[in-house]
Amino acid sequence: MNDAGDIILFPIGHVDSALTDLDDAPRQGDEGAPDAWVVVNPDVAAALLGITVGDELVIITWLDKGRRDVLVTHPRGDTSRPESGVFATRSPHRPIPIGLLLARVVDIDSNRVRVDRLEAIDGTPVLDLKPMLASPDRR
Amino acid sequence: MNDAGDIILFPIGHVDSALTDLDDAPRQGDEGAPDAWVVVNPDVAAALLGITVGDELVIITWLDKGRRDVLVTHPRGDTSRPESGVFATRSPHRPIPIGLLLARVVDIDSNRVRVDRLEAIDGTPVLDLKPMLASPDRR
Repeated sequence: MNDAGDIILFPIGHVDSALTDLDDAPRQGDEGAPDAWVVVNPDVAAALLGITVGDELVIITWLDKGRRDVLVTHPRGDTSRPESGVFATRSPHRPIPIGLLLARVVDIDSNRVRVDRLEAIDGTPVLDLKPMLASPDRR
Repeated sequence: MNDAGDIILFPIGHVDSALTDLDDAPRQGDEGAPDAWVVVNPDVAAALLGITVGDELVIITWLDKGRRDVLVTHPRGDTSRPESGVFATRSPHRPIPIGLLLARVVDIDSNRVRVDRLEAIDGTPVLDLKPMLASPDRR
């Protein structure tokens, strides 16, 4: 945090995926999105120790295409629905555009973790990885 | 993001709670942590529109007491357990100390949302609020 109270982050890694446009995700078939690699920067790769194939991870992303000046929106872009505040939606357009994704680990290769069906486009910055626990957000 | 690739954030609000030390939480009784207010900055309070009592929210916090240089740790501080990378744990000490909490809305008052059993200490910065959906991290 700097003197102004700002928080300064540098991503821990990024998504390496064949998905370059989220609009294409439904075309990938029944499963929605393709498997993808989460590539972790070498300087923090030690923090992957203990992650194993089969684990469910919460992947926290930075939605760098998100517009940070949007406070109200029509859910899913459907203008026939009443406006909703972005904190009541999962819109990527929000004051702090953090995304939460859940995926299962299918492979690990050095500083890369391959996960199933990741709905994030290629190059998306990653901020954190956490294990999904039985009661995911209480521990 | 600045030219160096850093992401710069200013919190959207903070936690207003009687809890001043997480070690005290178990002493609050069977329910663990007390109810608390999430106070949203007036300039983004419009984004609360549509949140109602009974909603389950994911509250994304900034764990400002977290040490950002820790990559491996003993789970729950138990040195009899093998070390684990912090991405395989929920430790608050991690390169980007973002916390995820789940809580239910019990009251709304202007730019404040009261939630049940919030395991966050008084003053914790809040980065985002999202609705918990049936499949929480897929949408």
